[in-house]
Amino acid sequence: MPNPTAAMLVIGDEILSGRTRDSNMHHLAKELTKAGIDLREARVVADDAAAIGAAVKELSGAHDHLFTSGGIGPTHDDITADTVAAALGRSIDVRADARALLEAHYARTGGELNAARLRMARIPEDATLIDNPISAAPGFTLDNVHVLAGVPAIFEAMLASVLPTLTGGAPLMSQSIQIFRGEGEIAGPLRDLAGRFPDLSFGSYPFQRDGAFCANVVVRGSDAARLDAAVAELHRLFPE
Amino acid sequence: MPNPTAAMLVIGDEILSGRTRDSNMHHLAKELTKAGIDLREARVVADDAAAIGAAVKELSGAHDHLFTSGGIGPTHDDITADTVAAALGRSIDVRADARALLEAHYARTGGELNAARLRMARIPEDATLIDNPISAAPGFTLDNVHVLAGVPAIFEAMLASVLPTLTGGAPLMSQSIQIFRGEGEIAGPLRDLAGRFPDLSFGSYPFQRDGAFCANVVVRGSDAARLDAAVAELHRLFPE
Repeated sequence: MPNPTAAMLVIGDEILSGRTRDSNMHHLAKELTKAGIDLREARVVADDAAAIGAAVKELSGAHDHLFTSGGIGPTHDDITADTVAAALGRSIDVRADARALLEAHYARTGGELNAARLRMARIPEDATLIDNPISAAPGFTLDNVHVLAGVPAIFEAMLASVLPTLTGGAPLMSQSIQIFRGEGEIAGPLRDLAGRFPDLSFGSYPFQRDGAFCANVVVRGSDAARLDAAVAELHRLFPE
Repeated sequence: MPNPTAAMLVIGDEILSGRTRDSNMHHLAKELTKAGIDLREARVVADDAAAIGAAVKELSGAHDHLFTSGGIGPTHDDITADTVAAALGRSIDVRADARALLEAHYARTGGELNAARLRMARIPEDATLIDNPISAAPGFTLDNVHVLAGVPAIFEAMLASVLPTLTGGAPLMSQSIQIFRGEGEIAGPLRDLAGRFPDLSFGSYPFQRDGAFCANVVVRGSDAARLDAAVAELHRLFPE
């Protein structure tokens, strides 16, 4: 059975303006690979309801899971929850379960649960809350869309509580070798090898060291013995 | 006149598997902001011709510029040039001008211009070459699509030679202030302020310091006097 597929939607003007560098995509990519879920596509859009809504519809329709990051705080530019609800045809309002989480948090920390903060209790009907152990305001899962916070520590904590609830596939394994030759010298033999191992995927990723071009060749697949055989062939082809 | 818009397409399995962390998106975002070009969307897709082709068609049709990163090396998984040519309805073959660049490079460095490396001279008809001062193999611009290398040093060098040829808009200016209160306490006044300055955009970006939630509030616009006025108001609202 093929592995489940996933997409990611990063929401935030600050990424597209270059003010902030996103780190959630890289974290999600590593965690999904470990879980045997294939991340097929990632997108970054601005804090714009039309752009978010269109991407949520398209990506949730095309993949088994969609993970979003950002736009669920208390300020006027936080529109993710409302936009996801609209895209999936659900109503949204302050929900008692989410409100109770915030009330308990602010009672404990001494903050005030004002109108702005209460917006973080707006949760679509039918959604399941995702625990936020850091600042209480929950994420949620609605259908196959997992709506997580943008602050990296909170994103990572929310993901850690969602991932064990999903059914993954066979973990994709990979092995890599560094080859201290330019990609142009290894491309021909590598293509032939890839043809002989159609069940594996071969990637070549160039890098520079001391001014010389080198390549990491990565072989991926779900059969350990086949991976071993392909990597042995690589070592034979490119000894050093 | 509104600023020109742009999208980015990052091509590469290695980003989606979490093996490599993309840095070109963040670099492009910063450079386009300086040039007065609005980056509206970024996508990451795998080394898959259907996914690349669909994204090239959609993004080049929706924006004034599309920048791609990755997939123009000599190995079998480098399919960007052929896919972009097909998406834009052009033929592609080894082109004499690109071949001459590679011949000169390998004559100088002592490498062999073999069949794999010659693939890097495959350039669509009508495309304009983009100089690669590092390893010779050129990028290209076809219509409004700028095809750049994935290796960050080469991506940045190619971008530096393309950007001055594009017509930018008024550089978007921004000012920011750090507010040592949680977003929930500033959200109400910030929303009111944003309503009074509809020509500016206000973003609020939470961060944690010593366990306390704080926010960077960023105001963006193209009129310096209006920016100054809005930031003065912010300092008045949130003194400290």
